[in-house]
Amino acid sequence: MPDTSLSLDHGRPVAPSTGALRPLGIDDVRLRGGFWGDRQELNHRAMIEHCEYWVERAGWVANFDAARAGTLPGAHTGREFADSDVYKLLEAMAWEIGRTGDEAMDARFRAIVDRIAPVQEADGYLNTYFGRPGQGARYSDLEWGHELYCYGHLIQAAVARGRTTGPDLFVEIARRAADHVCEAFGPDGIQGVCGHPEIEVALAEFARYTGDPKYLEQSRLFIERRGHRTLADIEFGRQYFQDDTPVRDTDVMAGHAVRALYLAAGGVDVAVETDDGELLTALKTQVANTTARRTYVTGGMGAHHEGESFGLDFELPPDRSYSESCAGVGSVMVNFRLLLATGESRYADAIERTLYNVVAGSPGEDGTSFFYTNTLHQRVPGATPPADEQSPRAASSLRAPWFEVSCCPTNVARTFASLGAYVATSSPDGLQLHQFVTGTIRGAVAEGPIAMTVETAYPDEGTITVTVSETVDSEWELAIRVPGWAHAGGTLVVDGQERTVVPGTARVRRRFAVGDTVTLQLDVSPRLTYPDPRVDAVRGSVAVEAGPLVLCAESVDLPEGADVNSLRIVDAEAPRVRDGQPVATARLAGFESTDWPYADALGRPALSEPFELPLIPYHRRANRGPATMRVWMPCA
Amino acid sequence: MPDTSLSLDHGRPVAPSTGALRPLGIDDVRLRGGFWGDRQELNHRAMIEHCEYWVERAGWVANFDAARAGTLPGAHTGREFADSDVYKLLEAMAWEIGRTGDEAMDARFRAIVDRIAPVQEADGYLNTYFGRPGQGARYSDLEWGHELYCYGHLIQAAVARGRTTGPDLFVEIARRAADHVCEAFGPDGIQGVCGHPEIEVALAEFARYTGDPKYLEQSRLFIERRGHRTLADIEFGRQYFQDDTPVRDTDVMAGHAVRALYLAAGGVDVAVETDDGELLTALKTQVANTTARRTYVTGGMGAHHEGESFGLDFELPPDRSYSESCAGVGSVMVNFRLLLATGESRYADAIERTLYNVVAGSPGEDGTSFFYTNTLHQRVPGATPPADEQSPRAASSLRAPWFEVSCCPTNVARTFASLGAYVATSSPDGLQLHQFVTGTIRGAVAEGPIAMTVETAYPDEGTITVTVSETVDSEWELAIRVPGWAHAGGTLVVDGQERTVVPGTARVRRRFAVGDTVTLQLDVSPRLTYPDPRVDAVRGSVAVEAGPLVLCAESVDLPEGADVNSLRIVDAEAPRVRDGQPVATARLAGFESTDWPYADALGRPALSEPFELPLIPYHRRANRGPATMRVWMPCA
Repeated sequence: MPDTSLSLDHGRPVAPSTGALRPLGIDDVRLRGGFWGDRQELNHRAMIEHCEYWVERAGWVANFDAARAGTLPGAHTGREFADSDVYKLLEAMAWEIGRTGDEAMDARFRAIVDRIAPVQEADGYLNTYFGRPGQGARYSDLEWGHELYCYGHLIQAAVARGRTTGPDLFVEIARRAADHVCEAFGPDGIQGVCGHPEIEVALAEFARYTGDPKYLEQSRLFIERRGHRTLADIEFGRQYFQDDTPVRDTDVMAGHAVRALYLAAGGVDVAVETDDGELLTALKTQVANTTARRTYVTGGMGAHHEGESFGLDFELPPDRSYSESCAGVGSVMVNFRLLLATGESRYADAIERTLYNVVAGSPGEDGTSFFYTNTLHQRVPGATPPADEQSPRAASSLRAPWFEVSCCPTNVARTFASLGAYVATSSPDGLQLHQFVTGTIRGAVAEGPIAMTVETAYPDEGTITVTVSETVDSEWELAIRVPGWAHAGGTLVVDGQERTVVPGTARVRRRFAVGDTVTLQLDVSPRLTYPDPRVDAVRGSVAVEAGPLVLCAESVDLPEGADVNSLRIVDAEAPRVRDGQPVATARLAGFESTDWPYADALGRPALSEPFELPLIPYHRRANRGPATMRVWMPCA
Repeated sequence: MPDTSLSLDHGRPVAPSTGALRPLGIDDVRLRGGFWGDRQELNHRAMIEHCEYWVERAGWVANFDAARAGTLPGAHTGREFADSDVYKLLEAMAWEIGRTGDEAMDARFRAIVDRIAPVQEADGYLNTYFGRPGQGARYSDLEWGHELYCYGHLIQAAVARGRTTGPDLFVEIARRAADHVCEAFGPDGIQGVCGHPEIEVALAEFARYTGDPKYLEQSRLFIERRGHRTLADIEFGRQYFQDDTPVRDTDVMAGHAVRALYLAAGGVDVAVETDDGELLTALKTQVANTTARRTYVTGGMGAHHEGESFGLDFELPPDRSYSESCAGVGSVMVNFRLLLATGESRYADAIERTLYNVVAGSPGEDGTSFFYTNTLHQRVPGATPPADEQSPRAASSLRAPWFEVSCCPTNVARTFASLGAYVATSSPDGLQLHQFVTGTIRGAVAEGPIAMTVETAYPDEGTITVTVSETVDSEWELAIRVPGWAHAGGTLVVDGQERTVVPGTARVRRRFAVGDTVTLQLDVSPRLTYPDPRVDAVRGSVAVEAGPLVLCAESVDLPEGADVNSLRIVDAEAPRVRDGQPVATARLAGFESTDWPYADALGRPALSEPFELPLIPYHRRANRGPATMRVWMPCA
C-alpha cells in the first residue's frame, strides 16, 4: 500500500517544489456560479456522466473485463489507446469527487477501478491492447502503441485521486505501473520513448506527489532521450512526435500539437525540479516563439489537419485550423507551469485566452457534445452529426457526442473539474489572482491564512471585485493580473482610490482588513483586432474581440440567404454593443459568377448597404444548428 | 490470342466512337524539339529508365517473381498497389516504343511482361498483394486494396501497347484480366467498386480498342454503382472515394482529387459511348464548377494534404496546396475527353495550363527527380532529399527520386510519351490545333490526307506558324485555339493578311495549297493576375503570368538574407522583360518582432526601396537548390 503519510496537498494538479509562485488547489479555490462556475456545474451535471456512458458504450471499460476474462484480443474495441480515455475520465471524476464530495460518483469511480485492477500484471504492466497471445508484444510499437501514453494518463489520474481522496487501490495501481516504467525504460531498459508524450509530465508530478525522485529521474530520461531519432521515420517525419530534435535544442513547437505541448509541460517540470536553467530557457523560448508565430487569435494551436500539427511560422489558415481542443488543454498545462516557474503574467494571459476560446467552446450548452477541432472559418453549414452516434471524424463541423478517437471530451472534463487550481497562486507574502471567477480563495502568507471572495460578471462585464474575508496582522500583497488584451490598461480601485494600471500585474501591498475591497475595472467593450501582416491567410481581414473573448459571425444572424463568406467589415466604424449585443458595421459582397477565378483586373464585388452585424462569442458558436461562421472578416 | 484485326489506330490514347472532334494519335503528331519535344527527349533519355531502375530497386517487379516463386506474402515489398506502377511504367514504355521504335526498350518491355505473365491465375486474376495464403482474400478490401485500380493501369498500358505495337502477350494478359473483372464484378458478381477509380476509364477504352461492348458495360456498371455507399465509411468520409453521391448527381469534384478526376474521365467515356446526355452534362458541370472554384492558378487541383483532396469552394491555400502531379495528369485526361466530346476550347485551355504549370514541373531538369505535390508557396527552404533514396513523404519540398507511394513519376512519363496525341484533332472537314508545339501533324479530311508543320518558340515567344505540307483539292478548315489567357486576343496572319482574333477558336477555311502559312501571334509578355475576392487565402495578393506560364519568385533571386515571405509587389507598375528576364517591381517588408501576432492597430511593415524582382516559370522552380518560393505575392 502507498505511504499513507502522503498529504492531500490541497488538490493541486501541479505542485512544483520550487518556483516564483506556489499553486493553490481545488480545495483552496471554490467557484460559485459565473462563467466558469456554471461550466463546473455543467461538468458535474452532464459532461462526466456523458463520458462515463460513452466509455462503457464504446466498450473501453469492458476491454479490462475482457482482459480479465481472457477474451482479448478478439473482444477488444476501440483504438490502441482506448485505455487512456478511461483514465482521463477517472481523473475528471477524481477531481470532481474531491471538489464536491459526490459519494455516488465515488462509488462509480471505485467500481471502474475494481475492473481495472485485476488486469495489472505481476510486474506492473497494464494495457488491454498489447502483450497477450494474438496481440502485439509489449512495447513492440513505440511509435503508435501508446502504452506509455496510457500510463501517463493513469498516473495523472492517480495524482488527482491521491491529492483529493487520498491513497487507495487506484493510486497503488499507478505506483506499480510507474515502477514498471522505471524498470522497463530505465538506464538499463529499453532506450526508447513513447510516440505520444504524456508519461513525462505524469511521472514528474508523481515524483512530486510521492516524494520519490526515481520517477522524476525517469521523466528526465524520457525528456533527454527524445529528439534522438529512436522512433521510426514516418510519413509525417519524426517531427510528428518531436523525435527529430532534442527538447533543449528546439526553439519553436512543431509536429503534432498535443504531443508537443504535453512534452513541453513535462519538460518544464523536469527543468524546474532538476534546476536545469538551460532546459527551462529552451522551453520558454519554445512557448514564446510558438505564441508569437504559431497560435491562432483564439489561443488555438495546430494549423494542419494532416498530422494534427503546428504549421510553419505565420501559417495560420482560419478555414483549416485544426486547433484541437486537447491542444488547448495542453497549452493551459504548459503555460500554467511556466506561470508558476516565472510569475510572468503573459502565461496567465495565454491560459485565459485558451480557456475562453478553445476549451470553453468544446462542449455544447448541453454538455453532451463536443468540438474536437476548432475551425475559425466554417465555410459551409456542417451536417448535423447523429445525436447518439460515435463520430468517425475529428473534423465534424458540429459538436458530436463521441469520437472514434475521443481524447477531447474527457480532457475538457478533467480540466473543468480542476479549474479552481488555475485561478490563483500564493507566495510567502501574498496572493496572486490570475483568472477572474466568482468564488472564494484561501491562501496563506508567512504569518498565517488569508482568504477572499471574488465577485464578477466577467467576461460579460469588466468589473472584478475582491473582498478580503480573512487576513493576518501584517502587510501582504494582493497581485491582480491586468490582462494583456487590455491595451489601454484598466482602473484599480482600492479603498475608493482609483489608479490606472497597465497590462501585467497590478499590486496592492498593505495591511488588509477583513472587508477591504480591491476592484479592477476593465473595458470589455468590443474592439477590432488586426493580424500581423505575416499571417498571409487573413490578410486584409479583421476580427472582433471583447475582453478575453474572440467573437465571431454566424450565418443564422445574417439576412435570409446570406452567408458569412460574403461578409465585409466596415472597420472605419468601431464595433459596439447594441441592446446588449456586440455588433459591427458590415456589408455583404455580391460576387459575380466567373468561369475562372483569376483575372487581370481586380474584381471588386458590389457591396450592400451597411448594416449592424451581430457577433457572438466564438465559444458559443454552432449552438443554433448548422451555420457558416467566421472569426476573421475581410475589411470592406 | 487477341483479335489480330485490331488496328494500331494511330497510337491514340483515347478514341471515342463519336464526339465533336476526332483524336489524332502519337503517329499523327510528331514533336521536334521545343518545350514539349525537349521533354519527350528527357523522358526517353532519362525519366523512363529512371522509373525502370526504381521499380526494380524498390522490388515492385520482383513482387511478380516472388509470386511465381511462391515466396509471397513474405517477400512482398511496397504498398498494396505497387503493381500499378509497374503497369504505368509499361504504359510509358509502350507509348515511347511506339513513338521511337526503340528496340532495346521493347526488349526490356517484353522482359518485364514475361515476369508478370506467369503470375496471372487461370481465371485471369492478377495481383501480387492478395489472394495467396497469408494474404488478404481477393477483393476483401475494396476500400484500400486497389486490385481494380491495378487492373485499370494494366489495361490502359495494354491499350497503349495494342495501339502502337499491336496485340501481344501483354494485351492478352490485360484481356484476361478485363474478362475476369467483368465476371467478378458483373451484374451477378460483387456489387462493389474500387476505392480508387481507374478501372472505369480503362475498361471504357478497352471496349473501344477491342470493339467488345462488354467492357463498356462493366465500366458503366462501375460508374453507376459508385456513390451508393457500398464502400465503408472512413475517417475522411465516403466522399474521399466519391462514394457519397452518384456521379450523375455530383455538381463539383470533392474528395481525393486523383480519384475524382480518374472517375470523371471514365464517366465521360461512358457518357459518350452510351449516348448518356444527362451523365455528360453532369460531368461538364462538375468540371466547370471545379475549374471555377476549386482550381489553383496553375491548373493544380487538391487543396488539402489531408485526404489529398479538393477543398471547398474558393478554399485554395497556396502554402498548403497539395496539387498532386497525378491530379494534373487526371485533369488533362478529363479535359481532353470533354474537348473531344464538345470541341470547346476551354478544355484545351485547361489542358495547356495544367501541362505547363503542373505536369511539366514535376520532373526536374535531369529527369530523375520529381515533385509529388506542388505547393504555390514554399515558406522555408526545403531540405534536400537524399539523391538516391526513396522519399517517405509526398510533401517533400524538393524533387525526390522516388516515393513510397510513387504514382507521379510513371504518370508523368506516360503523359510525356503520349503527349503528341493531345496536340491536335481532326474532323471530316478540317484540323484543330489545340496545343502549340514544334513538329508535324498529319490528319485527314473527307477528301484525303492533309499535313502541316508547326514552328514556334512558345511559350517563350508568342508566334506560332503553321505551314501546310500536304493538302487536298478542296476547302477545309484549320482551327487554331486562341488561348483563354490571351484576354486581349491575338493576331492571325493568313497569306499576309492580319486579323484580330479573340480567345476561343480562330478558323481559316480555304482551299489550302502546300506551303500556305497561318500564323498566330500572341502577346506572352508578363502580366499581373488577381484572384477572385472569394479566394480568402490570397486576398490582397497578385501573381504574374506570361503566356500560359505562371511565374514565381524564388529567394535565390533576392538580395542576400531576404526571403519571399517579405516580398511586396508594386502592382501599379506592370511587370516586364528586362534582358530576357521577366521582372516585377517589388519591395521588401521589414517586419517588427512581436510577442503576439494580433493587435488593435494594423501593423504596416516598413518597405524597402523598390527593386526589380526576377521571376521564373513556376515549372522551373527548385532547380537551383533549397529556396523559398511563392506565386501569390502581397501587393505593396
